[in-house]
Amino acid sequence: MLDICLAGTGGMKPLPGRWLTCLYARSEGHSVLIDCGEGTQIALAEAGCNLKPIDLICITHVHADHVAGLPGLLLSMNNCERTEPLTICGPAGLYQILQGLMVVAPELSFDVMLSEISGETEQFLSAGPMRITPFPVKHRIPCLGYSLYVGRSGRFDPQKARELKLPVKVWSHLQNGSSIEIGQRIITPDMVMGPPRRGIRVVYATDTRPTESIRDYGRSADLMVLEGIYPDNAKLDKAKEWGHMTFPEAAALAASCGAGELWLTHYSPSLTDPEAQIENARCVFPNSVAGYCGMKKSLRFPDDPVK
Amino acid sequence: MLDICLAGTGGMKPLPGRWLTCLYARSEGHSVLIDCGEGTQIALAEAGCNLKPIDLICITHVHADHVAGLPGLLLSMNNCERTEPLTICGPAGLYQILQGLMVVAPELSFDVMLSEISGETEQFLSAGPMRITPFPVKHRIPCLGYSLYVGRSGRFDPQKARELKLPVKVWSHLQNGSSIEIGQRIITPDMVMGPPRRGIRVVYATDTRPTESIRDYGRSADLMVLEGIYPDNAKLDKAKEWGHMTFPEAAALAASCGAGELWLTHYSPSLTDPEAQIENARCVFPNSVAGYCGMKKSLRFPDDPVK
Repeated sequence: MLDICLAGTGGMKPLPGRWLTCLYARSEGHSVLIDCGEGTQIALAEAGCNLKPIDLICITHVHADHVAGLPGLLLSMNNCERTEPLTICGPAGLYQILQGLMVVAPELSFDVMLSEISGETEQFLSAGPMRITPFPVKHRIPCLGYSLYVGRSGRFDPQKARELKLPVKVWSHLQNGSSIEIGQRIITPDMVMGPPRRGIRVVYATDTRPTESIRDYGRSADLMVLEGIYPDNAKLDKAKEWGHMTFPEAAALAASCGAGELWLTHYSPSLTDPEAQIENARCVFPNSVAGYCGMKKSLRFPDDPVK
Repeated sequence: MLDICLAGTGGMKPLPGRWLTCLYARSEGHSVLIDCGEGTQIALAEAGCNLKPIDLICITHVHADHVAGLPGLLLSMNNCERTEPLTICGPAGLYQILQGLMVVAPELSFDVMLSEISGETEQFLSAGPMRITPFPVKHRIPCLGYSLYVGRSGRFDPQKARELKLPVKVWSHLQNGSSIEIGQRIITPDMVMGPPRRGIRVVYATDTRPTESIRDYGRSADLMVLEGIYPDNAKLDKAKEWGHMTFPEAAALAASCGAGELWLTHYSPSLTDPEAQIENARCVFPNSVAGYCGMKKSLRFPDDPVK
């Protein structure tokens, strides 16, 4: 299962009632945060997202509305007496920005590891069962989208296990992906497990024009969280000039990916009621939703029972 | 007249429903902001305080909860197409902190002038009719309190003006403090104005132990805005250790100054309902008020008519 919370939905500057865009993802006690603008720690608190288990903070790009909340968030983690190391990843240039911002948080109780992603070759990061893949998108400065994937192993075949005369007490080791040694035999998981089943994929991209990379990573995604800075294409020239995407553009991307659902976010401060304009996306991709601050969803594996 | 807005009241970290402590003061179209932690620009927007006319930002000290909102605020001023220069003053060390934080706001449409205040000699700053005096207080790092004073000239004496045979059309020049030349005579304002009348004084001090300096500047202040990190003296040792003040301590300061009113602020995140504990201050100084975010007051000269 993958729990998703869109804690903020604004672009450019935080507004009363609209936090800056950020996404909190949680699976099996591990958490990932994407972007951290001014006020993100308040947005997370308001949405009930716990700071302590954040393993990884992914930064899309180093504009202030995506990074300026980092010192405050890290200080609050510090005040929770965190000792576990934290990884922050983002595009080239992140180190210099963090070096500047962290002047107000010079000492922390935990280590911060930095990973600058060039985007030239595919790289993976992980947080518990989540595999995170950054990919380059197209903004005015280097910018990354992120794919979050929770994989799922194949189905365990008890019939095969019995044929191999494996005692029941070792079944769970194999189900969890470990090999075992019984007598002279090495038993590997693939001997008792079916082929990997479909996992859960969420793709996040803001501050970008539509790109092939978003289309590639978004293919068959369960959820795409995409920027919709303007509600229609009346300001398309402005969106192009500043490296942003409109509602219809984001919806067209989601449609071309065959995504399960689209959440729009990163609204212009001039867009006061995104929900009122959602038809501009739905007429292109029916499963479009106007994201709102604190919006949550638990994504389940296809045959997970709903509790 | 001096309009005061306590836009935030929190200490340490911003909370849902409680912005970090900051004070916005406005007089005759000029504004001063004291402190700017994470989210202060949202607090100001929520309280209806206009960013554009801010002439001066006064920083008490360089802990994150008092400065981390500066890049966001300055970028938002920039997006309002501000061109007027802005002055930021604060204690020694402010330059280095700003140099770090402003890495996410490298280009602004206006000049920022920095004034580091050593506190060794008395210095004044001004914003329109407001005269701002920083004074040293006692925290774990260099920290300043601020006195805001709006002076008031003496009463104009038309009888004296007539005796001097001054034409009515020049009276307003003298009332506004300018000298005039008539024939061979130089007429100075003091020749037609009575002695200066009592002005309006607001004194602001957070993140400090009680000090003689607060007592000196707070004497007969119309309003004192003081920290009350804890509601009673049960945690006095902790307050002393970390350089803070409790409700009873702030109230005792206000009482010893003969202040008109005390607003408490800079509450610990552990203090969820300051209003419920206000008696701890009122029993020492009856005109104590538990500050809340967005609290406003228009302070008038003693004989101003209330509109």
